[in-house]
Amino acid sequence: VVERAEDTQREQLTPEDLREAWPVLDVEERLEGFQLLPREEAEDFFLELTSRSQAMVLQGLSPRERRTWVRLMPPDDIADVCGEFPREARSELCGHLDDTTRREVNALLAYAEDEAGGLMNPRFARLRPEMTVEEAILYVRRQAQGKLETIYYAYVLDGEQRLLGVVSFRDLLLARGDKPVREVMQTDVITVPEELDQEAVARLIAQHDILAVPVVDAERHVKGIVTVDDIIDVVQEEVTEDFQKLGGMEALDAPYMRIAFRRMVKKRGGWLAALFLGEMLTATAMAYFEDEIARAVVLALFVPLIISSGGNSGSQASTLVIRAMALGEVRLRDWWRVIRRELAMGLVLGTLLGAIGFLRIFLWQQVSPIYGEHYLLVAFTVFGSLIGVVAFGTVTGSVLPFLLRRVGFDPASASAPFVATLVDVTGLIIYFSVASAVLRGTLL
Amino acid sequence: VVERAEDTQREQLTPEDLREAWPVLDVEERLEGFQLLPREEAEDFFLELTSRSQAMVLQGLSPRERRTWVRLMPPDDIADVCGEFPREARSELCGHLDDTTRREVNALLAYAEDEAGGLMNPRFARLRPEMTVEEAILYVRRQAQGKLETIYYAYVLDGEQRLLGVVSFRDLLLARGDKPVREVMQTDVITVPEELDQEAVARLIAQHDILAVPVVDAERHVKGIVTVDDIIDVVQEEVTEDFQKLGGMEALDAPYMRIAFRRMVKKRGGWLAALFLGEMLTATAMAYFEDEIARAVVLALFVPLIISSGGNSGSQASTLVIRAMALGEVRLRDWWRVIRRELAMGLVLGTLLGAIGFLRIFLWQQVSPIYGEHYLLVAFTVFGSLIGVVAFGTVTGSVLPFLLRRVGFDPASASAPFVATLVDVTGLIIYFSVASAVLRGTLL
Repeated sequence: VVERAEDTQREQLTPEDLREAWPVLDVEERLEGFQLLPREEAEDFFLELTSRSQAMVLQGLSPRERRTWVRLMPPDDIADVCGEFPREARSELCGHLDDTTRREVNALLAYAEDEAGGLMNPRFARLRPEMTVEEAILYVRRQAQGKLETIYYAYVLDGEQRLLGVVSFRDLLLARGDKPVREVMQTDVITVPEELDQEAVARLIAQHDILAVPVVDAERHVKGIVTVDDIIDVVQEEVTEDFQKLGGMEALDAPYMRIAFRRMVKKRGGWLAALFLGEMLTATAMAYFEDEIARAVVLALFVPLIISSGGNSGSQASTLVIRAMALGEVRLRDWWRVIRRELAMGLVLGTLLGAIGFLRIFLWQQVSPIYGEHYLLVAFTVFGSLIGVVAFGTVTGSVLPFLLRRVGFDPASASAPFVATLVDVTGLIIYFSVASAVLRGTLL
Repeated sequence: VVERAEDTQREQLTPEDLREAWPVLDVEERLEGFQLLPREEAEDFFLELTSRSQAMVLQGLSPRERRTWVRLMPPDDIADVCGEFPREARSELCGHLDDTTRREVNALLAYAEDEAGGLMNPRFARLRPEMTVEEAILYVRRQAQGKLETIYYAYVLDGEQRLLGVVSFRDLLLARGDKPVREVMQTDVITVPEELDQEAVARLIAQHDILAVPVVDAERHVKGIVTVDDIIDVVQEEVTEDFQKLGGMEALDAPYMRIAFRRMVKKRGGWLAALFLGEMLTATAMAYFEDEIARAVVLALFVPLIISSGGNSGSQASTLVIRAMALGEVRLRDWWRVIRRELAMGLVLGTLLGAIGFLRIFLWQQVSPIYGEHYLLVAFTVFGSLIGVVAFGTVTGSVLPFLLRRVGFDPASASAPFVATLVDVTGLIIYFSVASAVLRGTLL
């Protein structure tokens, strides 16, 4: 009754409204909104949700409702939703499925979530090479009945279910009806192995502008297909993870507005504390040069300027290399070319900043003489240190992603804060060493 | 003759080899490799290249060859390639086209490159509502002849060419042949206006798991369609731009390994110099506290530690907010909720770092007493400043993307280096103010 009353009250609720509001609603509001949608619109709405949201909706429903909704979904999406369910609730969910689907879902659950095998849909249109185009169209029609996933290719298999070729529906439509499928199909099919990482699958699909790619085992048996719409989600997810690592934290496992405060503290506090511990070395380094600072306080003034320049140039280098690696433009074996280039870049950029710094000190001194009689020597110190620090920054920033990948970590962890922390300590040492050399006998 | 000799020598060159090597080849090597491919494979290879690479290949060919290759391309891709050509060479390129295509290309060039209108293909399959399914299939077959772009939807238009609905080829295949298209088509078509930003188009296609979206004007006339394969490229491009901005530089306009050194210096040097000028304020701030430093050199030791913590926490906050905005999880009107959350987060994280810092000073002093008799007061100064600096960092980092978007800039420009620069100056002021309050009468 309450629901019906609300229904009348808010009868204008459209799927667009709900989609718009979704990210900022809490679990109950989402469920309430979902149940206010007319059945047909609710179906489309449900199937377009992320796995996490689908799991949330399903958990909020009664077992009977859950059954009708889970039966709408293709097996690969059910497997993804299972991954979001608490372990003890999974078998209840699978209990709602018919035998074939349950077998398919269980097979999918055996693959890692981020591999081609974990991403694929085991249902796809199959043809035999000796069928005519006309028979093929009829046959595909029959197979397609009752399938939800959009499919635009049919795969041609031999007697042992091995892949021979692929035809698009468009090819079928355009070909003469009495031609055998064998003559219409393309035989140089792009395929992926079951254990290929999802990022590599995404790259392949993007590169070849195809709508789906078949997943095959070593004997070219087709295990399923990965479609372009799954891939867009994957790309977005991976990019979000890279962004978060690049910001100097662990990747969050929920959207920013939804994640619990405590969980976010953990994800961010861990890296922040680690960076803080690393950065403590700057205090040690500064303590080592305490006498120099005491004798020439003017040196302390430029410490933040110098070390931040190293961090900034390192951040540029690491971000460029990380992204170029993700796009496949730079590979491990290119490391030497990249580092040479970044060293040259660092020397040029360092000279630029050094010149600006020199000018700043020189001109400022003419207006308000706060840098003392040896201000020209101080300006030279700043000039020289900046070249060293910026070049060290670009080299460190470019080496780090290679090192991380080499030892099996995600290069995206070479975040701006991480690089800056590494560069800060060395930057101080470079600065004070240059200062010792230039100012010995005058200020020091 | 030379070419034929090379052909024999390297006759194993496959499109895969060339694609693999492409990013690291220079212009001449690319052209040479391309011309070594057998014609049919070269066609697929060419059509899968990015617009930039296609333009490069076309420019390297003779006018006669250029003509045959450009005629292979759909109008939207030709328009993109035109954008990569030097202005004076464009009319020569368009001269190779037939009249219809030239008109289409010119119409596309009138749109901004990053809008739906600039992305769309003006060729798509059109149907009338009163056709039967059988007629529709025949009609689509005829229209599809000679088109290159893969198309999987046909759009149903009324007498004035306004959009009535959409049918997928799959729907046509599955429907009874004598049904009118009107009864098979879906009428709640998702459409986009011509001037919609490409990122928004990408989000829509990803969200609805569709293969193409029609671009319509205010009267629902269909101007063209944007297909999913164009969108994947767009997503990748936008993400690369965001990454580079996030790294504290201008977005590069070429892949990392290809861009000229001089051009990269410009793209990176500009931001680096701007950040450097901003960071100079730290020298001014430090000069303002010069007396305090001279009296208590121990204060200088923690300057890098304190300000980098503010920068790191700010970098986390800005990266999170930038990405959540790009995904549509956070909108402009959420600013107050986000900022409150980040303030709380900053206070918690600041207390955590402050406690670590306090402990570090306390314990270190027991081992080697370098911090003097007032070390506990120094430790309290560090503790208190870290809470202030980290909270200021998270708030600045989260406000900045909102401000940038509000005034029409890309929020991704709120990079870690930019945030750090803003936070550094204020961090110094917070630190020395806390120090003045805590140490007045003892060290100061």
